[in-house]
Amino acid sequence: MKRREFVRSLGVVPALLAGAATSGRAAAEKTGEASSQTAESACACRGTGDLGLVIERATGSVLIVEHTKGSILARIEGLGDLSHASAVFSRDERYAFVFGRDGGLTKIDLLTAEVKKRIIQSGNAIGGAISDDGKLIAVSNYKPGGVRVFDAETLKPVADIPATYRGGRSKVVGLVDAPGRRFLFALYDAGEIWMADFSGKAPEVVRIGPAGRYPYDGLIAQGGRIYIAGLFGEDGMALVDLWQEPLQVKRILKDYGKGEKKLPVYKMPHLEGWTEAAGHFFFPAVGRHEVLVMDGRSFKLVDKIPVHSQPVFVMARPDGRHVWVNFAHPDNDTVQIIDVVKRKVIHTFKPGRAVLHMEFTPRGERVWLSVRDANRIDIHDAHTFTKVGELPARAPSGIFFTVRAHKIGL
Amino acid sequence: MKRREFVRSLGVVPALLAGAATSGRAAAEKTGEASSQTAESACACRGTGDLGLVIERATGSVLIVEHTKGSILARIEGLGDLSHASAVFSRDERYAFVFGRDGGLTKIDLLTAEVKKRIIQSGNAIGGAISDDGKLIAVSNYKPGGVRVFDAETLKPVADIPATYRGGRSKVVGLVDAPGRRFLFALYDAGEIWMADFSGKAPEVVRIGPAGRYPYDGLIAQGGRIYIAGLFGEDGMALVDLWQEPLQVKRILKDYGKGEKKLPVYKMPHLEGWTEAAGHFFFPAVGRHEVLVMDGRSFKLVDKIPVHSQPVFVMARPDGRHVWVNFAHPDNDTVQIIDVVKRKVIHTFKPGRAVLHMEFTPRGERVWLSVRDANRIDIHDAHTFTKVGELPARAPSGIFFTVRAHKIGL
Repeated sequence: MKRREFVRSLGVVPALLAGAATSGRAAAEKTGEASSQTAESACACRGTGDLGLVIERATGSVLIVEHTKGSILARIEGLGDLSHASAVFSRDERYAFVFGRDGGLTKIDLLTAEVKKRIIQSGNAIGGAISDDGKLIAVSNYKPGGVRVFDAETLKPVADIPATYRGGRSKVVGLVDAPGRRFLFALYDAGEIWMADFSGKAPEVVRIGPAGRYPYDGLIAQGGRIYIAGLFGEDGMALVDLWQEPLQVKRILKDYGKGEKKLPVYKMPHLEGWTEAAGHFFFPAVGRHEVLVMDGRSFKLVDKIPVHSQPVFVMARPDGRHVWVNFAHPDNDTVQIIDVVKRKVIHTFKPGRAVLHMEFTPRGERVWLSVRDANRIDIHDAHTFTKVGELPARAPSGIFFTVRAHKIGL
Repeated sequence: MKRREFVRSLGVVPALLAGAATSGRAAAEKTGEASSQTAESACACRGTGDLGLVIERATGSVLIVEHTKGSILARIEGLGDLSHASAVFSRDERYAFVFGRDGGLTKIDLLTAEVKKRIIQSGNAIGGAISDDGKLIAVSNYKPGGVRVFDAETLKPVADIPATYRGGRSKVVGLVDAPGRRFLFALYDAGEIWMADFSGKAPEVVRIGPAGRYPYDGLIAQGGRIYIAGLFGEDGMALVDLWQEPLQVKRILKDYGKGEKKLPVYKMPHLEGWTEAAGHFFFPAVGRHEVLVMDGRSFKLVDKIPVHSQPVFVMARPDGRHVWVNFAHPDNDTVQIIDVVKRKVIHTFKPGRAVLHMEFTPRGERVWLSVRDANRIDIHDAHTFTKVGELPARAPSGIFFTVRAHKIGL
């Protein structure tokens, strides 16, 4: 039923190694206002393992930060619309690739604090990913619906994958990298999960199968084994086990999404808000004030933890001992901490208005919170929970540490 | 029975923040033959996320390598006896701390390719660890038996923990870091597991409990939750669940170690040879040609996989899809790859004589093998298994990539 189909998409450019090939729809290349000079003399002599990026959504700028002492190293301006921006990092942790809502793709050198390259690659982008070998950047687009792939070194276009289905071109969501130079993504309008495989001489695009109605986001989990897509048009989630041949889509969590009333899609919990701890998934319920717990072997729901309000992000400390939870407006001034063994809230505090994002240091000794309306980043000890520092920022949203360079799916 | 005891060890120096306090046995401080000048102008402008160290055991030297292109950046000489050397990294991935058998502790700047600091801290050292916040380096010693802790910035002594028991001072083994600025270790002669907690104003040393006869090594697993110690004097393993209060030692794998004949302790499989994949532990059998599989929830043995010879290292690809196995002399020319789902060997190859160590790149697209007697490092594609490169090295043994900076226990 869900057989693996080989689909050679219109306009896929296979010239991976042959330099800058272009598709029918050439990516518009534009350097932004930000400086892109390379100046070796301005290169910081420092490691990159303790660096990070903070998105300043209101001003189209980003901060380069370091989390050893906890300080701001630089601000870079001119990055356009960063309202739902995300970032990935090069494998050496030196470069950040920032994906902006306006289609902007910006490569930032964290050591020189400069924009190395910037292009505007589509009308309306959602997110992006970097391949496991660090050589390809993929970006998913609403309009035109599809995935564009770029050389990570130069940002030159490498492939263009239109998400074509019988109804036209579908919005693409849930784009992640997968082991073996592959990308997974979901087609919102078509209700399908696809895979793009760049491991061979020519890229292959594979339709894994139908996911359900309106997959609105996706994540990869368990180190790169499991792809999960959320469904807006029906209850339940779609799951692909990448270790199972042939690849197929299964349905899990059949009741996930059933609420007293239907949420609009932009209020559906995004799958970046899911986390793993102690072999389980902890994630936001839909339209309920609960954090749900799913067993990572059976994929069955095993618990529901009452929390303060509608959860947005559930983030596990790296060892998995606790998960930290933030909430949707109007309760976004609150953070709660859940004990993963007891499966209940053990601490509640209110950093300030609009706590948008939380990011743990690599070994989990500290966690950074963006407190947007206070124009502040708060730094907490992740063991005692006490606040140990703060940094000024302009309406900060996403916080991304370079450790993500080393993790599939981030 | 196994109550938590608070032991204030003789000679523990609590002056963590008060500068360079010394104990009764002052650490001998000696800079090695290698240069330790700091020269900002010689600092490489590069990320540190793709760097690594290769131990050249026969010549007391190390190579600084990068795994993006796969090349050697520098060689550093004069590091003494590196026959069982190990390394940990600073949280920014800039510095390596190399622990040598002769008690040498060397801090290497990977960007300037220089020795920043070197001390000889005991008669006979085994291994070391770095605290989760990156501020403390702990070293475990045979003679005199105990743990010494140093400031990671300066290598000045911070604490001295003699492993004192009724019989004198015990050899210390299995030293690892644990979340919350703690270290765990085992006392070989005393048969106990201890913890040193540096999270408060003064260090606390806690005797968790008896482990069994002659714990010879230890590891920390599941992101920092589980400590396992191997026992030389009896069958089975000792386990501590760090999330369980009060801390206690349990026995698991009661038949582990039962072989037709008893192996000498130096032939017992060291716990660095254990790995985790798909929620299970894969590890060498004792005196049998098998890789054993233990369920990571129940800690029960679930499978035995026949392999070529006595396994030494079992290393999982980061996504856990396969584990790679090397073997003890005289079969150390062979490597086998096990499919984690099928739980059987799917590939066997012979890189050359004395394949001592294997290290995966952070996202697992490649793996590096040290082939000591061929004076070579082989680089393989971890998906196709084919060899894709090689580098010359002098009798290489351990390979350590900087991604370890981001992981508890490494």
